[in-house]
Amino acid sequence: MIAGVIGATGYAGAELVRLLSGHPNVSEMLLSSVSFQGKQFHEIYPNFLGRVSKQLLKAEDVIAASDVVFSALPHAVGEPYAQACMDRGAHYIDLSSDFRFDDDEETFSAWYGKGYAHPELHKKSVYGLVELNRKQIAHLAAQGPAIIGNPGCYPTGASLGAFPALAKGLVAAGATVIVNSITGITGGGREPSPAFHFPECTDSVTPYKIGAHRHSPEIARNFNAMAATGNQAAPALIFTPHLAPINRGILSTIYIPLADKYRTPSISSQGKVMPPAKEIEEAAKKIHSIYEGFYKDEPFVRVLPLGLFAATNRVRQSNYCDISVHLDISGGTLIIVSAIDNMLKGAAGQAVQNMNVVLGVDEKTGLEAIPALF
Amino acid sequence: MIAGVIGATGYAGAELVRLLSGHPNVSEMLLSSVSFQGKQFHEIYPNFLGRVSKQLLKAEDVIAASDVVFSALPHAVGEPYAQACMDRGAHYIDLSSDFRFDDDEETFSAWYGKGYAHPELHKKSVYGLVELNRKQIAHLAAQGPAIIGNPGCYPTGASLGAFPALAKGLVAAGATVIVNSITGITGGGREPSPAFHFPECTDSVTPYKIGAHRHSPEIARNFNAMAATGNQAAPALIFTPHLAPINRGILSTIYIPLADKYRTPSISSQGKVMPPAKEIEEAAKKIHSIYEGFYKDEPFVRVLPLGLFAATNRVRQSNYCDISVHLDISGGTLIIVSAIDNMLKGAAGQAVQNMNVVLGVDEKTGLEAIPALF
Amino acid sequence: MIAGVIGATGYAGAELVRLLSGHPNVSEMLLSSVSFQGKQFHEIYPNFLGRVSKQLLKAEDVIAASDVVFSALPHAVGEPYAQACMDRGAHYIDLSSDFRFDDDEETFSAWYGKGYAHPELHKKSVYGLVELNRKQIAHLAAQGPAIIGNPGCYPTGASLGAFPALAKGLVAAGATVIVNSITGITGGGREPSPAFHFPECTDSVTPYKIGAHRHSPEIARNFNAMAATGNQAAPALIFTPHLAPINRGILSTIYIPLADKYRTPSISSQGKVMPPAKEIEEAAKKIHSIYEGFYKDEPFVRVLPLGLFAATNRVRQSNYCDISVHLDISGGTLIIVSAIDNMLKGAAGQAVQNMNVVLGVDEKTGLEAIPALF
Amino acid sequence: MIAGVIGATGYAGAELVRLLSGHPNVSEMLLSSVSFQGKQFHEIYPNFLGRVSKQLLKAEDVIAASDVVFSALPHAVGEPYAQACMDRGAHYIDLSSDFRFDDDEETFSAWYGKGYAHPELHKKSVYGLVELNRKQIAHLAAQGPAIIGNPGCYPTGASLGAFPALAKGLVAAGATVIVNSITGITGGGREPSPAFHFPECTDSVTPYKIGAHRHSPEIARNFNAMAATGNQAAPALIFTPHLAPINRGILSTIYIPLADKYRTPSISSQGKVMPPAKEIEEAAKKIHSIYEGFYKDEPFVRVLPLGLFAATNRVRQSNYCDISVHLDISGGTLIIVSAIDNMLKGAAGQAVQNMNVVLGVDEKTGLEAIPALF
Repeated sequence: MIAGVIGATGYAGAELVRLLSGHPNVSEMLLSSVSFQGKQFHEIYPNFLGRVSKQLLKAEDVIAASDVVFSALPHAVGEPYAQACMDRGAHYIDLSSDFRFDDDEETFSAWYGKGYAHPELHKKSVYGLVELNRKQIAHLAAQGPAIIGNPGCYPTGASLGAFPALAKGLVAAGATVIVNSITGITGGGREPSPAFHFPECTDSVTPYKIGAHRHSPEIARNFNAMAATGNQAAPALIFTPHLAPINRGILSTIYIPLADKYRTPSISSQGKVMPPAKEIEEAAKKIHSIYEGFYKDEPFVRVLPLGLFAATNRVRQSNYCDISVHLDISGGTLIIVSAIDNMLKGAAGQAVQNMNVVLGVDEKTGLEAIPALF
Repeated sequence: MIAGVIGATGYAGAELVRLLSGHPNVSEMLLSSVSFQGKQFHEIYPNFLGRVSKQLLKAEDVIAASDVVFSALPHAVGEPYAQACMDRGAHYIDLSSDFRFDDDEETFSAWYGKGYAHPELHKKSVYGLVELNRKQIAHLAAQGPAIIGNPGCYPTGASLGAFPALAKGLVAAGATVIVNSITGITGGGREPSPAFHFPECTDSVTPYKIGAHRHSPEIARNFNAMAATGNQAAPALIFTPHLAPINRGILSTIYIPLADKYRTPSISSQGKVMPPAKEIEEAAKKIHSIYEGFYKDEPFVRVLPLGLFAATNRVRQSNYCDISVHLDISGGTLIIVSAIDNMLKGAAGQAVQNMNVVLGVDEKTGLEAIPALF
Repeated sequence: MIAGVIGATGYAGAELVRLLSGHPNVSEMLLSSVSFQGKQFHEIYPNFLGRVSKQLLKAEDVIAASDVVFSALPHAVGEPYAQACMDRGAHYIDLSSDFRFDDDEETFSAWYGKGYAHPELHKKSVYGLVELNRKQIAHLAAQGPAIIGNPGCYPTGASLGAFPALAKGLVAAGATVIVNSITGITGGGREPSPAFHFPECTDSVTPYKIGAHRHSPEIARNFNAMAATGNQAAPALIFTPHLAPINRGILSTIYIPLADKYRTPSISSQGKVMPPAKEIEEAAKKIHSIYEGFYKDEPFVRVLPLGLFAATNRVRQSNYCDISVHLDISGGTLIIVSAIDNMLKGAAGQAVQNMNVVLGVDEKTGLEAIPALF
Repeated sequence: MIAGVIGATGYAGAELVRLLSGHPNVSEMLLSSVSFQGKQFHEIYPNFLGRVSKQLLKAEDVIAASDVVFSALPHAVGEPYAQACMDRGAHYIDLSSDFRFDDDEETFSAWYGKGYAHPELHKKSVYGLVELNRKQIAHLAAQGPAIIGNPGCYPTGASLGAFPALAKGLVAAGATVIVNSITGITGGGREPSPAFHFPECTDSVTPYKIGAHRHSPEIARNFNAMAATGNQAAPALIFTPHLAPINRGILSTIYIPLADKYRTPSISSQGKVMPPAKEIEEAAKKIHSIYEGFYKDEPFVRVLPLGLFAATNRVRQSNYCDISVHLDISGGTLIIVSAIDNMLKGAAGQAVQNMNVVLGVDEKTGLEAIPALF
């Protein structure tokens, strides 16, 4: 099977190349780059020296000879490539936002400043959050060449963290769920800029784009879809991204007001804040058990034992989403922490996972790396 | 004036030594250390070589000759030293939690596992968050030797960020305020341990002690006191600390549900999440102006211009608390971000600020360092 | 084939577990730990959750059932385990220094403070720098259970960098070769200590153990052995290690005074230091070509194209040793820079490479990871 | 006294602004920037908010009203500004390389690609390494407006480390001294580029510009001048810079072959490398004592006690140059390690030190900061 990567010299593209190099179903890779066309891939990334010696082609030439095409291009340029893949009969997996909103052109254009040139492509595409849409992806691919919108990095961690709560009725009616996320610097991509210049971002943490990040509508849409799987109403969403001086990883701390059924009855402490009561531990066990049950068959979601805290270094260089379950002191709010590697489960790894579903092979194929801790 | 530091070889103690070395009102320093008694201070911290050549004494000997004594010892051991200072007529500024809860022994003992041996000392001590209690501190010191409970690092950043909202009636009735904080590794102190071992904490972010951190009751108490200054009711609190691989700094992202008066009327978007409406900008200006007005005379609180985000590297090595003001997309929640240097405004700097108030000198004395960015 | 790891919970041990988990010739792993005997491996390293669920045994029980035993224990305790392996007929690969000095007990005991209890074991062991001793390792293993002394991290990078120069007569007679190395913090192991406490080692570089590091005799011995392969005399050695705030990696900058034949004739510049003359470029090409030729069949040594500089992030998480070739301005000194991942090529990766040689399988088996750059 | 900074928005310029803000002899600052003319300084560096509210002017306007002008512009543009200062009667301190080579236009033009337009300015300028040229600087300034060429960052650390050895005859005749330096990322300045993009430079060390760095001729020239102060011949020089993921700091490890008089007589060990003999310790004490004596009156050079290793975090944010003294195992090579903060002693701090000498005030004025360790 020939895999093509267009936009192979961005960070997500290079990670795809790394993963696909070790994928047993990929017999050959074809790579394109606008900026470096004609050069060898390892000239741009010398870490691949002796391993990936591929001339960087034009996107058209990649598509013309590939069975599956990954697009790791910027937003709002993917439609023609998707169309070309459909014409050729190749599957198309887009790592940008272009196919994340299905036929909701209104939302896409409001946030990305551009409408759909080929609305019909978005009618048949599927949003590639495998844990949510596994069946739809497989079904679509069974019928012919598929278009998959690979999820955004923040939406992946936030949505997987909230999914069981949303689907199983844990969320209080009318609640607002707050997703407070921290990302590593690779999330900003390969292009140097003041915000990602070492002296200005190392040894510092800061939020950005509060109340205005383009992943907000994607997370909200996922919350809706996830709640709907359990016939639940979706909560409102507040999403706040932060930057920390790590290379890989997104940690999302998700505050979920609990439905009465799961709240711990208030313990009187005369208005004082006291250490958590013993009842809290029982309540946490109950919810933890729901989370474990919900994800028991998912190959890439690990619900951590109670007492552990999700951490980005425990999923680094892997396709895992680690989830830890906590309650606030009063027992009224569920606090879920999810950790992913933004370049893998949040981008290239999830894209390969999608390819595996599309091809009908074991979903873990080529994604078996154990996180290395350091 | 002779300043004593007991527990001078911990991180907060060493920062005190650094600050006091440059303080024009301090004619001499006396230092103690349990672990390193008899050694020279610069043997423990060679960065002080040629600058601070002081033999490390016993705490008793420091107290016996000092006009102001700073205690940078662990929690729950400070009372006898406070008593000794009172006996001698020296001011006592405690950087541990021992004098942060006034006469609320119930809360202190529930969280720190030890009651008050000298309850009468706590009746006359003052909680040293200067921006809240400046007058009380000065008043107390005017009457004789004062005991000051220097605030915790998280409570300082969280409380200063929320103070204007609490006092000015911006918080919705019955609301829960979420404080999501990220701290640097110096917050864990000088003692090596797996959690702060470089290979395990660098390049990673993780939460800890969710729903169980001992700074929760201190923040909640401050919220009560701050709301009371404006005759407002205090909200409930959820506090979640995280660890990031930076040396200094605490960033607190504070989610404050707005009272109706400050909420932006909902704009219909058929259930979709759309970019923030223009009305949001106006609402933010109004709240930003309240924050600016509230803090206009505070020497160490900087309300950033709208559009900037508080960042820990912009306050590093200074006594500033930077605050940025934001709204969520819907305009229903105020999002305040505060940044402090945990070792300065969150510990040693604030302690010197307290000393300045106690001595009746300009509050900025010895604390004029401009943050260095890198 | 059953692989045993004794001392599995140190950093090198844990890396071995990670590598062996993906090794196609390893059907089962057995792990031991003194500190954590009885616990599950993933309790110590939660990054392995769901991947390696092994109870930590006693070393004796591991040896009793393994075909190949890796020892990742501290120095000077390995002999009894080696003996036990010989008795059982299992290969023994020791990652400590215990079997790095062959029968030179004098040097070992002078540096490690302990003589040989079983000198006969050291007579038949082989030093496992595969690029130097591949044939001897294979030969030994062909005859029965083998004892392999896996090289130290610094000696690996330093020796591979100098090998072609030493063997091919590039070194000036009577010269002193300086190896200036920089290592990451994982080199210090898993035990927390002040030197590796995040606040004290991040954002700083410093040398340590100048003129006294225990890897000096190992490097010097290798230089001798490597020069001998080309019937050359070995130079004297100066070795200086430094610590930098990175997790993985050793960068060695090796200063080799050139034999006359390879020196660029001095260009008169009236005693001034001028930019490098064009002749320098030619001289560098010649030496670069010797290096390329020397290593052309080595699977894990990459001689970088002229103009590139070896960097630790380009070999991270791989078994590669990258080497770049340079000349000083005058053309009189060859400057070789080598980069390895200290945990892989400098420890666990090289140990697996040794196992592959011992087993007679492709040397790259289980070591195919492409470095990930970030 | 009015101090002007032209090029105030680069990193060295901003550090100057920070230092001059706290300098008691500076009554006013005037700042210029080509890129940001017309803006407020704190808009570019919000860490200065509330502290430095200065509109960024044109360089000409700064010069027209200043008593001392600092130029923190790129190389090879400073001559007209120097001339303008001479015309006006203002002292001129240039942080670029433009006035570091006195009247040696040949060397300057060979390395910087541009000759002198005003050769006469270079005849009367002085190279501002205060420890070498204190008297000449003061003498020049006593006669009228002075031009000072502030030293490069690497040359400062390398030269101060070698100075006592060069001047006191410790260096073997005909020797080559190797300076192996490691710098932090701020050394690359404020302009974002791939080499300083966080994901590509964090967690990695690498050399650069081996055999071709423009600081080589400056170090070599200093070695000549320093040796000449003791009527000694200067050694040849090899200089190799490296990059490490720290913000501030240069660590230089300097290898100095010892003159016979200072060498430890060789101890026979049958060709084996053995731990350092006791005689080595005595030899080190002797040299250490020479270093201590040499620098005993220097306010900013700290010769560390034997046994300590210079480290960049112990001089961070200060104007100190820390020096540690070591010998290699054989006692034949002196290994000096020097550490400076590249932005202070290596740039802005040294420039202020020069200003102090020019003004005839205490050299430490405005430079009293104690390094903060973390």
